[in-house]
Amino acid sequence: MRMYDLIMKKRNGGILKKEEIEYMVIGFTNGDIPDYQMAAMMMAIYFQGMNEEETLDLTMAMAYSGEILDLSKIKGVKCDKHSTGGVGDKVSLVLGPMAAAAGIPVAKMSGRGLGHTGGTIDKLESITGFHTSMEEEAFIHQVNEIGIALVGQTAHLAPADKKIYALRDVTATVDNMSLIAGSIMSKKLAAGADTIVLDVKCGNGAFMKTEEDAKMLAETMVKIGNGAGRKTIAIISDMNEPLGYAVGNALEVAEAVEVLKGNGEKRLVELCIILGAYMLFGTGLADSVEKGKEKMESVLADGSAYKKFLSFIKAQGGDLEEIENTDRLLKAEYREEIYAPVSGYIAGIEAEEIGISALMLGAGRETKESKIDYTAGFWLNKKTGDKVEKGECLGIMYANQKEKMEPAKKRFLNAFIFSKEAVPKQSLIKAVIGD
Amino acid sequence: MRMYDLIMKKRNGGILKKEEIEYMVIGFTNGDIPDYQMAAMMMAIYFQGMNEEETLDLTMAMAYSGEILDLSKIKGVKCDKHSTGGVGDKVSLVLGPMAAAAGIPVAKMSGRGLGHTGGTIDKLESITGFHTSMEEEAFIHQVNEIGIALVGQTAHLAPADKKIYALRDVTATVDNMSLIAGSIMSKKLAAGADTIVLDVKCGNGAFMKTEEDAKMLAETMVKIGNGAGRKTIAIISDMNEPLGYAVGNALEVAEAVEVLKGNGEKRLVELCIILGAYMLFGTGLADSVEKGKEKMESVLADGSAYKKFLSFIKAQGGDLEEIENTDRLLKAEYREEIYAPVSGYIAGIEAEEIGISALMLGAGRETKESKIDYTAGFWLNKKTGDKVEKGECLGIMYANQKEKMEPAKKRFLNAFIFSKEAVPKQSLIKAVIGD
Repeated sequence: MRMYDLIMKKRNGGILKKEEIEYMVIGFTNGDIPDYQMAAMMMAIYFQGMNEEETLDLTMAMAYSGEILDLSKIKGVKCDKHSTGGVGDKVSLVLGPMAAAAGIPVAKMSGRGLGHTGGTIDKLESITGFHTSMEEEAFIHQVNEIGIALVGQTAHLAPADKKIYALRDVTATVDNMSLIAGSIMSKKLAAGADTIVLDVKCGNGAFMKTEEDAKMLAETMVKIGNGAGRKTIAIISDMNEPLGYAVGNALEVAEAVEVLKGNGEKRLVELCIILGAYMLFGTGLADSVEKGKEKMESVLADGSAYKKFLSFIKAQGGDLEEIENTDRLLKAEYREEIYAPVSGYIAGIEAEEIGISALMLGAGRETKESKIDYTAGFWLNKKTGDKVEKGECLGIMYANQKEKMEPAKKRFLNAFIFSKEAVPKQSLIKAVIGD
Repeated sequence: MRMYDLIMKKRNGGILKKEEIEYMVIGFTNGDIPDYQMAAMMMAIYFQGMNEEETLDLTMAMAYSGEILDLSKIKGVKCDKHSTGGVGDKVSLVLGPMAAAAGIPVAKMSGRGLGHTGGTIDKLESITGFHTSMEEEAFIHQVNEIGIALVGQTAHLAPADKKIYALRDVTATVDNMSLIAGSIMSKKLAAGADTIVLDVKCGNGAFMKTEEDAKMLAETMVKIGNGAGRKTIAIISDMNEPLGYAVGNALEVAEAVEVLKGNGEKRLVELCIILGAYMLFGTGLADSVEKGKEKMESVLADGSAYKKFLSFIKAQGGDLEEIENTDRLLKAEYREEIYAPVSGYIAGIEAEEIGISALMLGAGRETKESKIDYTAGFWLNKKTGDKVEKGECLGIMYANQKEKMEPAKKRFLNAFIFSKEAVPKQSLIKAVIGD
């Protein structure tokens, strides 16, 4: 087999066989196939696409390119949840303890990534003392003991995906459904869960801008998951405005605590409950989605999810005082209120622009080497549909670098769209695929 | 400027600006732009194409990526001839001396390349003592003295093309008209001639299999040449059977001598005359193509082309005895006649298959490192349209490696298509572009 022939085949619209895809993935991962041939292949795939079978074969080859997490020592049906990413998305921080409280063992590996804010791992690291790396044995032990553990993704997990993604990232071959779906799912499959619940975001603050694209991605991932023998369900949710109030690492932890205490923003709570409901339904712990919702509402109402969060933070070394009094998390040197320039209704808050404003303050990574400013970010006081008076506080900016505040504030304000008339709220859940 | 953005632009069907193409070509040549980004770009170009302006800009950027030959010290209008390559194509060996005898200064740089047989340079090197490398000053001096010099192409000529071609060759991005035309023309432009006559082959033994493709390539090259201010004419000629009788390096030199002595195969002679006629017409040395033809016929008939060939070979150190008695060139250890298996007419001789048979005997390079067997090859006794009796000699195989003879002979025989009915000869010249 020669990589040249496989590139030519795909370029000419051919279908790659399973053994050809395995040859390519293994060869590229171990360095036998050079970058330039893989780059040409990725561009050919961008133009010619991959069918369902090729997409599954690629995903499996990437999943099995490294170590496969063995979760068999954890009791119960393991369920993993994944979000395609959005602005202010602190769902994992909330849903993890909720699911654990509801009886689903949560053994989660999370990435860091380049985003407007850090990933779940970065957010948790904004808590003093919290550690996110653990030996496999300790990880499994913690899940069996308290029902939840959350660690950083190791380099041994789906190394092929890591190497291929890095190449796609610099060759303008990221945006292809099969490749995006395969990249996400290869890590999920390698992470060992039996059931996978996907939160696919759509809107201006998400990678998928339209509902149509989000559905296509969701369907592709569900097919891969099911093809690999894992029960997979995808929920498509709105990302046209930031999720919840906080955008920034420590700020989002603080908001997660509020949600777990029962004081969460309505849409954020709704999303956590529906995702949790599908996790319970998907693992068979609830007979219906409705029953799952009830269970999730109850773990919030009776404080068991919050208690689970406290034991989880404690188990991984986090300072509980920062959780019990979240003002201690919000240590940014500067704090500035931002006021509404006009009176009216908020017709929209462009999520991506809010994300970029937070990134400008240092809340995310611009390059892999960037150091995150954990306490920088925004707290939104108003959301889409809210009435606002000129001069009223729209949100609070938290920052540590004074010179970055003025441009970030300007961008933040520009994200708001005002209207003289009242504006209906958009529905949060757009569709459910695979249930 | 970032290469990433240029890949994205082309991928999405955008038009690259001149400065973007220059940035890309210079950056890739000096190593600032990595292989994998250029590979992705080439595949994007394969799918999205380049317009006329982009193609010219790319060609110019590659032409000017290294040294540009300064032929101003050579008297007269310089004309270069280039063939896109075919089986048994010894035209340069014949046409060079013919053009020189007709008064066109021939200052030619030729490549070696990977083919069924070697390039013009390899063929000339089959003459004992002949040297193909020369300082620029000596090269120009020789052209001014005897009217002709032919040397190997230096690495300093269009280095960008060399590097880009090597990458395309391993990433399945060779067959794109703009890239093929740009690669050929960048070297022609850098080689400094005022007028360029292109021999574009079409048929089963050529890179362009159809007349349509050959015309498109010819038109693209003519536009580039004219766009760069060089008078450019392309002749499209048939390559459905080998050109002339000989396929192999020393064998082709021997055949060239026959042509120069006035004993050439009809179609080969016809092609040399028409190409020469356009060289004379293109440089203004003949008022019409018809006048050009008459001149070319006369330099063959009066022996002046042959005399020019002798002085050329002598000037570059070749053994004149091998030219005067070409049997001395045909030194292969084994010599085997191949007989017709049936009686009838020859309906076709698949050029590519004959080329591969010669390659099997060692007449060409399979890899860049292969050493050419100068005396190996075939001499065809029959051509398309000829009547043949069973047992009659179709051709002679020349070889030095006994074990390779049987498979090569089998492949050679398979190239012949026999017919019970008489078969009309195909016309040699298909079209002229740019006159």
